[in-house]
Amino acid sequence: MTLTRREVLGAVGIAAGTCALSSCAMEGVGSFQGGASKKVFPWKYAELDPDATAQRAYIHCAKGHCMYGVFATVMSQLADEYGEPYRSFPVDMMIYGAGGVADWGSICGALNGSAALIGLFVKDEAEIKKLVNELFLWYQQTELPQYAPPKPGLNIKMAKSVSDSVLCHVSVTRWCKASGHKAYTKPQKERCKRLTVDVAKKTVEILNAHFASQFSAALQHDEKTRQCMPCHTKGSKLQNTRGRMDCDSCHTTLPDDHGLI
Amino acid sequence: MTLTRREVLGAVGIAAGTCALSSCAMEGVGSFQGGASKKVFPWKYAELDPDATAQRAYIHCAKGHCMYGVFATVMSQLADEYGEPYRSFPVDMMIYGAGGVADWGSICGALNGSAALIGLFVKDEAEIKKLVNELFLWYQQTELPQYAPPKPGLNIKMAKSVSDSVLCHVSVTRWCKASGHKAYTKPQKERCKRLTVDVAKKTVEILNAHFASQFSAALQHDEKTRQCMPCHTKGSKLQNTRGRMDCDSCHTTLPDDHGLI
Repeated sequence: MTLTRREVLGAVGIAAGTCALSSCAMEGVGSFQGGASKKVFPWKYAELDPDATAQRAYIHCAKGHCMYGVFATVMSQLADEYGEPYRSFPVDMMIYGAGGVADWGSICGALNGSAALIGLFVKDEAEIKKLVNELFLWYQQTELPQYAPPKPGLNIKMAKSVSDSVLCHVSVTRWCKASGHKAYTKPQKERCKRLTVDVAKKTVEILNAHFASQFSAALQHDEKTRQCMPCHTKGSKLQNTRGRMDCDSCHTTLPDDHGLI
Repeated sequence: MTLTRREVLGAVGIAAGTCALSSCAMEGVGSFQGGASKKVFPWKYAELDPDATAQRAYIHCAKGHCMYGVFATVMSQLADEYGEPYRSFPVDMMIYGAGGVADWGSICGALNGSAALIGLFVKDEAEIKKLVNELFLWYQQTELPQYAPPKPGLNIKMAKSVSDSVLCHVSVTRWCKASGHKAYTKPQKERCKRLTVDVAKKTVEILNAHFASQFSAALQHDEKTRQCMPCHTKGSKLQNTRGRMDCDSCHTTLPDDHGLI
């Protein structure tokens, strides 16, 4: 699938007002001409080659870490093919997501970058949730990293681990346990680079499927979490929390009277 | 502080390539003229009125939830004052962060929006971490929400709570316990709206101070977390994890042999 010139022009709203500001004369932009820019949303997505995504993500990740690695990769693929507005998105801003947002260990930066892309290309909130849900469940349940770089930045036998969580803190800790390596070391950073590649590739596969009307959710929460949900989530008896993360990655023990009230 | 025309023009890179793509003639954009756009980064920040931020965030939050509420508010304040490129940032993409990223309960969406803004306006990674650190520690340790809207969307006596966490899941659960209200209810959503206002206001205060060279970190981790760090974080004996979140909000109990190895 490729974009026509008309389709790409549908995404140029980000430029029109800027030109007005900078006193440039605009021609040929149709309804986007003039000072009050018409903000086009969502941005157009075009099918990408997931293997090309993977190769590029490994390089981008080395430059700006995990969130940037996913976001800048997809944006640069679209920019190379279609130019603007993709080329001028300030992708460097996404460096903030590294290490679970500025090293805080919350949401995995690769997943934050993916979700940001999905938010940019998909307008409907229910659809965003459906795609993010599939990606996040896959991340929680899959042995990662899977990517084997043709030219590894670090030559090691790479251990794999299942995170059971979308949080950087938990994901890294589990890999450290599985591998025997410490955090903040070259092997851990190499692991996160390769995991970022996996997430970028999976994101493109999901977006490709969605925009080809071929996406269907395949994964569900693990059994333990499914046992918790009927009492705690939306529409339940207690309805005392929000979220979709696996419960037992933090709630490892429960009080003796749990479930008796 | 206001931006000069020259300073604002420093941030128009996002438009140049688009104009080239859409065949418009560009004049007066200096070095940004032509097809290969020069991506300007970071974007310029200009001092904003935190009280105006608060008023606007309450309205924006109702439109696109927490992450959007913070991000779109600051961007719209700058857009109203300076036009482009702020006006054309595709702020709607930030809806993805609602409910801790697409309802997953991970990083609080308001904080994700704040960190994204800091990442857009601040280039140096160490500086980004310093500012995000102060914001996140404040969020973890402060009774929120504080904002009392002049025209409340919901008229209730608003309970306050200390989250002890930057995660949506924990933050909401603690407020539900403190208030007696269930999750996914109008009172909970009103609480998150007001908390989003608090975060937006605090973000602007931090950015104002930073760009006036008046920022200094005032907060530190709580005592319990400071006890954990010497064994687990960077440079420690075990160095077996990453993150800066309060430890005991998830690690409520420790095994009997903890600390003996």
